[in-house]
Amino acid sequence: MTSRSDVSAVKAALRTQAIETPSWAYGNSGTRFKVFAQPGVPRNPFEKLDDAAKVHEFTGAAPTVALHIPWDRVEGSGGYAKLAKHAEERGLTLGAINSNTFQDNDYKLGSVCHPDAAVRRKAVDHLFECVDIMDATGSKDLKLWFADGTNYPGQDDLRDRQDRLAEGLARVYERLGDDQRMLLEYKFFEPAFYATDVPDWGTAYAHCLKLGPKAQVVVDTGHHAPGTNIEFIVATLLREGKLGAFDFNSRFYADDDLMVGAADPFQLFRIMYEVIRGGGLASDVAFMLDQCHNIEAKIPAIIRSVMNVQEATAKALLVDGEALAAAQRAGDVLAANAVVMDAYNTDVRPLVAEVREESGLHPDPIAAYHASGWAGRIAAERVGGEQAGWGA
Amino acid sequence: MTSRSDVSAVKAALRTQAIETPSWAYGNSGTRFKVFAQPGVPRNPFEKLDDAAKVHEFTGAAPTVALHIPWDRVEGSGGYAKLAKHAEERGLTLGAINSNTFQDNDYKLGSVCHPDAAVRRKAVDHLFECVDIMDATGSKDLKLWFADGTNYPGQDDLRDRQDRLAEGLARVYERLGDDQRMLLEYKFFEPAFYATDVPDWGTAYAHCLKLGPKAQVVVDTGHHAPGTNIEFIVATLLREGKLGAFDFNSRFYADDDLMVGAADPFQLFRIMYEVIRGGGLASDVAFMLDQCHNIEAKIPAIIRSVMNVQEATAKALLVDGEALAAAQRAGDVLAANAVVMDAYNTDVRPLVAEVREESGLHPDPIAAYHASGWAGRIAAERVGGEQAGWGA
Amino acid sequence: MTSRSDVSAVKAALRTQAIETPSWAYGNSGTRFKVFAQPGVPRNPFEKLDDAAKVHEFTGAAPTVALHIPWDRVEGSGGYAKLAKHAEERGLTLGAINSNTFQDNDYKLGSVCHPDAAVRRKAVDHLFECVDIMDATGSKDLKLWFADGTNYPGQDDLRDRQDRLAEGLARVYERLGDDQRMLLEYKFFEPAFYATDVPDWGTAYAHCLKLGPKAQVVVDTGHHAPGTNIEFIVATLLREGKLGAFDFNSRFYADDDLMVGAADPFQLFRIMYEVIRGGGLASDVAFMLDQCHNIEAKIPAIIRSVMNVQEATAKALLVDGEALAAAQRAGDVLAANAVVMDAYNTDVRPLVAEVREESGLHPDPIAAYHASGWAGRIAAERVGGEQAGWGA
Amino acid sequence: MTSRSDVSAVKAALRTQAIETPSWAYGNSGTRFKVFAQPGVPRNPFEKLDDAAKVHEFTGAAPTVALHIPWDRVEGSGGYAKLAKHAEERGLTLGAINSNTFQDNDYKLGSVCHPDAAVRRKAVDHLFECVDIMDATGSKDLKLWFADGTNYPGQDDLRDRQDRLAEGLARVYERLGDDQRMLLEYKFFEPAFYATDVPDWGTAYAHCLKLGPKAQVVVDTGHHAPGTNIEFIVATLLREGKLGAFDFNSRFYADDDLMVGAADPFQLFRIMYEVIRGGGLASDVAFMLDQCHNIEAKIPAIIRSVMNVQEATAKALLVDGEALAAAQRAGDVLAANAVVMDAYNTDVRPLVAEVREESGLHPDPIAAYHASGWAGRIAAERVGGEQAGWGA
Repeated sequence: MTSRSDVSAVKAALRTQAIETPSWAYGNSGTRFKVFAQPGVPRNPFEKLDDAAKVHEFTGAAPTVALHIPWDRVEGSGGYAKLAKHAEERGLTLGAINSNTFQDNDYKLGSVCHPDAAVRRKAVDHLFECVDIMDATGSKDLKLWFADGTNYPGQDDLRDRQDRLAEGLARVYERLGDDQRMLLEYKFFEPAFYATDVPDWGTAYAHCLKLGPKAQVVVDTGHHAPGTNIEFIVATLLREGKLGAFDFNSRFYADDDLMVGAADPFQLFRIMYEVIRGGGLASDVAFMLDQCHNIEAKIPAIIRSVMNVQEATAKALLVDGEALAAAQRAGDVLAANAVVMDAYNTDVRPLVAEVREESGLHPDPIAAYHASGWAGRIAAERVGGEQAGWGA
Repeated sequence: MTSRSDVSAVKAALRTQAIETPSWAYGNSGTRFKVFAQPGVPRNPFEKLDDAAKVHEFTGAAPTVALHIPWDRVEGSGGYAKLAKHAEERGLTLGAINSNTFQDNDYKLGSVCHPDAAVRRKAVDHLFECVDIMDATGSKDLKLWFADGTNYPGQDDLRDRQDRLAEGLARVYERLGDDQRMLLEYKFFEPAFYATDVPDWGTAYAHCLKLGPKAQVVVDTGHHAPGTNIEFIVATLLREGKLGAFDFNSRFYADDDLMVGAADPFQLFRIMYEVIRGGGLASDVAFMLDQCHNIEAKIPAIIRSVMNVQEATAKALLVDGEALAAAQRAGDVLAANAVVMDAYNTDVRPLVAEVREESGLHPDPIAAYHASGWAGRIAAERVGGEQAGWGA
Repeated sequence: MTSRSDVSAVKAALRTQAIETPSWAYGNSGTRFKVFAQPGVPRNPFEKLDDAAKVHEFTGAAPTVALHIPWDRVEGSGGYAKLAKHAEERGLTLGAINSNTFQDNDYKLGSVCHPDAAVRRKAVDHLFECVDIMDATGSKDLKLWFADGTNYPGQDDLRDRQDRLAEGLARVYERLGDDQRMLLEYKFFEPAFYATDVPDWGTAYAHCLKLGPKAQVVVDTGHHAPGTNIEFIVATLLREGKLGAFDFNSRFYADDDLMVGAADPFQLFRIMYEVIRGGGLASDVAFMLDQCHNIEAKIPAIIRSVMNVQEATAKALLVDGEALAAAQRAGDVLAANAVVMDAYNTDVRPLVAEVREESGLHPDPIAAYHASGWAGRIAAERVGGEQAGWGA
Repeated sequence: MTSRSDVSAVKAALRTQAIETPSWAYGNSGTRFKVFAQPGVPRNPFEKLDDAAKVHEFTGAAPTVALHIPWDRVEGSGGYAKLAKHAEERGLTLGAINSNTFQDNDYKLGSVCHPDAAVRRKAVDHLFECVDIMDATGSKDLKLWFADGTNYPGQDDLRDRQDRLAEGLARVYERLGDDQRMLLEYKFFEPAFYATDVPDWGTAYAHCLKLGPKAQVVVDTGHHAPGTNIEFIVATLLREGKLGAFDFNSRFYADDDLMVGAADPFQLFRIMYEVIRGGGLASDVAFMLDQCHNIEAKIPAIIRSVMNVQEATAKALLVDGEALAAAQRAGDVLAANAVVMDAYNTDVRPLVAEVREESGLHPDPIAAYHASGWAGRIAAERVGGEQAGWGA
């Protein structure tokens, strides 16, 4: 088992892990059938940061917040500096800038892959705007998810669309500063239902490879075909030096966007094991959440998600590497599997609670949040105005 | 091959096939990411019927229109009679009444399966209202799709929800008139992402069996797990006397709601073969469309869908039953498969065009629709007001 | 959390749980590509029982052994009585009799569903033989898995095959004694690749319902479409009084037949939760393993599997029912989910070890098995003869 | 529609298409449950070529035969030259050499990825032997499918296995002659059930990219996750210059290895469309079959498969490129889709029959084969000896 000194190392590693929460998870979201609005939902990016600050206050592990443009667009000169300052005052930093090229009417048939050059230009201009915002906020990461694709065979030329994609990405890549990255996300399907232009890690990888070292792949844990071994992809991308970030969430069926760790906690553990195995914990791999809390209270759901990532990481850190390597070398299938399962079966909640307490935090972030009265306060104060949501 | 007299029989069978189009397919729809509005979309149920009349005018095969309550609610006394008359004047009949227990804020955690008895009562009252409307319109079918389910393990008790479902269904069943049916739809997932309360045909079948002969199962071709053999389910339900209706559409991934026949035309043919084999063509099985034309023009997409069902039916009717039975009896796998493939590989478009011409229709409904100028006319006339859509 | 008295109840419940191991898991198995033989594998049913006795000796939880006919056929009069006595002397009882209608050349196109009546007769005769063996061994359960199906559309008539299936089952059902059951297994696919004659729980349920109370459904955890919510099926079958048995194993992709609990331990926990919720633990639901240990040592793999079921059961028993019901009633999604996750995240290995020690067993069955020297002994002694395997 | 001159071009293109049949498809095969032997099955590589010659004789489109080592190993000096001459005398050429590193006992835990260097060496030596055979037979393609993978999390280190794979591939790559290629196949799962070492096109692509221009990817149409858009992968690999070959077959569920075109003929058409669109028809992309005719007669099944590929190709060639491009440019989703569907719905069997007749062949290869009496002759003559099969 794990010795005392190992436990210290595990705790130290846990303390280094930062999880980025997405501004949009604090707003209303739903399915195509219905958005169920919740009381107290933020009405602007500043209020989203206020909520994110609560998540960080109680977990100590969520110091950055991803923005989504235009949902978090701040008008006026100095707007983003003001937003960054608002974050800083709450112990937060602004994280990745997420582009949106899917909610404008022009994007019905795609954005950077659209058959019409004018629409492609508009999309690239939006991506330039995102880089401008990065310059203003100090964000290092431009996260690109394209809803581009087709619904019917023949609707558009699959190959031409790849050419257009490559061209658009190249233009944006050139615009990146020296310390900025482009994070390219892939997705199996939705909203396109026949072909998606970046459907799998292979496609994202091939594009990033040609673009250069500042282009890296995002693994969204909900964006794969049924049965896909995600940790294999994680291991492979780390081996290739091309894993840029995670979008964490859970799925049972499609891109369900449930709380990470809720559907298959064993998978999350296996993913974190490969992250650690591949050196991803001590690297610039970004651990982001990308979730939709359609029916559950949003802030505690995000707190729970952060905790779930921490617990999976703690378990993965507890894997006895020496015993594992020995069993693997010996070809002892059961013994090797048992080493991994031993770590997984360990209840790490006390350990993670200790890490919190040693940092001056309450051991139970959910209880602390509920005790704080924040939920009631925002429900009371945030009345009037337009509640934030995907389309708002 | 098929003899001259057989061709007559095929044509006769084709002439009997009626396909019900859904009022909501004429309105705007989309994904959770975006609804792309289209010009000329109807603003009320009457205009939806006007569009549906065009589909029937050019195909001769779409004489009934399914309504969705409350989207097609008509206010005022005599409203539904007026709607029925509007339909009748255009050669149409009002078809199945589709209930909606998923777009009210109260339904966040379910409707007839909700933990709160008051919400369940509200849902059942809505279903009663739907039966009232059936009484007013003369509709024979109450089509029930419940979005009920849970997103997280433990969220609610799976078994209690079944008990509540059974109770709610029983109350509505009792309310049905002698010539009215309850059609119960199942769906693999969405909008619930952990457990759906009627997830598969087995669950729908078990409930219908207990309710009685007026309860039957709806097969929506987009509501199955990947790889599911849908024609097997069709054959089984017909054998059990429990197939009530189809909701036709296409899917590559999930409930994509594309045009029927667009993703896997061979599957549609196999389904229609089992329909015919099981006597479903000459029975009261209802052939309904349930589609979302998110990016393609809606009326011609519906016309194309009707044509696709007709062509699949024609091919299925062309299967040489005697040759097939002989090969099956002989255990000649290749010969039996070849009989089926021979029918499938036949180009039946000339045959179906002949059927149209013999009924005084243009052989090419799409061309005829485009020539009619209807699309331009509605785009010009239907301005102002609220365009119909899922949420409208 | 769980009180002291609750822990006693949990322990008591765990002590009642008996897991049936399958004789064939002790023999060689493999994929269609290769069977990798292992040293010391049994050469006959008696040696299989010797191995099964070791599993029971160290777990105290595997007192019955399922047989597979003809793999475990014992020639000569009194043969099965001798086998039963061999079992009894080792503290075991003979469990379900599993039929095999898939490895004879006559079954190329099916068994009870075959187009040729002579083959169907042969299959039914084999099932009668299985009931005869039940009479001889005192086994209560006839477990039926049919490999029947078709590989190509049109190969055979789907509906006729259902009629033949119903007829064959009815004949066997009539032959059952008063205290005997028929357990009907369904499987999504394999070895048939187009249509399987009992592909899902709905089909098995519909047949069992018509047969009568002695016919019940078997849930093999590897026999579902990707994404299927198995615990929902468990809950539903229990609610209907039609859950007869489990065939436990794990899958990542298809019917992988890995050790139960190895691929998705959270799913196994959820299944066991529904078993307990539905009264299945204190009923005659049989908990069987059905696994293939292709590359790992067989006996310790089976021991590990028994332990995995026990641990999942222990966690499920720890769910705080009152807290859960309260959260569900309140519609508190996160709180309800947290109650379930709290139990799942508990490390129950010490608790299960205590149960063992209180029964006079070693707390670690795997260590005890390795210390026993049994693996070396059988490798040395079981030389010559034909090692048991699927085809042997 | 298609003009007279276009039809000539379609015919000319069809005449250039060569489909490679696999020697192993002529031998017995089965599932893990049972191999059903067929009469007249070849007993050695020479007899397999005799059967392959019949396929080519009646289709005129199957001039090359892939070998599988060691199944087609010919002992003695000059053995392979003799085999090549046997082929030549029958109008055939020997095609790709397929390696086998999965049926030796040493390969239980892998071959080129095995934790033990001695096993890896043995595997690489086998690959060297395959290249030696290529030198002897004049084969240009070394086709590599590795069954390597793991069944349980932790069983081996995923990343180390990639390193070993890269090293083994590099050694073999160096050994290739100037006009020889390495074709790397990927497979989603089976026989490994947790992680497969080359599970997807991305992994195969990444390795081939590093190896160099002589390494290309094989797309086996049965080796993908449910729902995967295979034609997208085909388009992408062609765009990258990395599509080396197809292994054609059909699947409903997993790697079912049914006749190509039997499960989803529309998908096969879409794949062939992308092949043509990407210039793959006039390139060195190899069109191979890789199928298992477990229950149907083997030679006619292979003939049917060749015909199915031809028909799909003919339909794809009939797509009206100009009309399609115009509709795509206009963003007319329905019109673009209709162009593609128009070609697919065409009955091309008369056209392909004409191509045969113009080449002096019978228009119906299946009828011609049956009339030839070959099946009866081999059933009568090939008695005694060991029938060829996967393990023989």
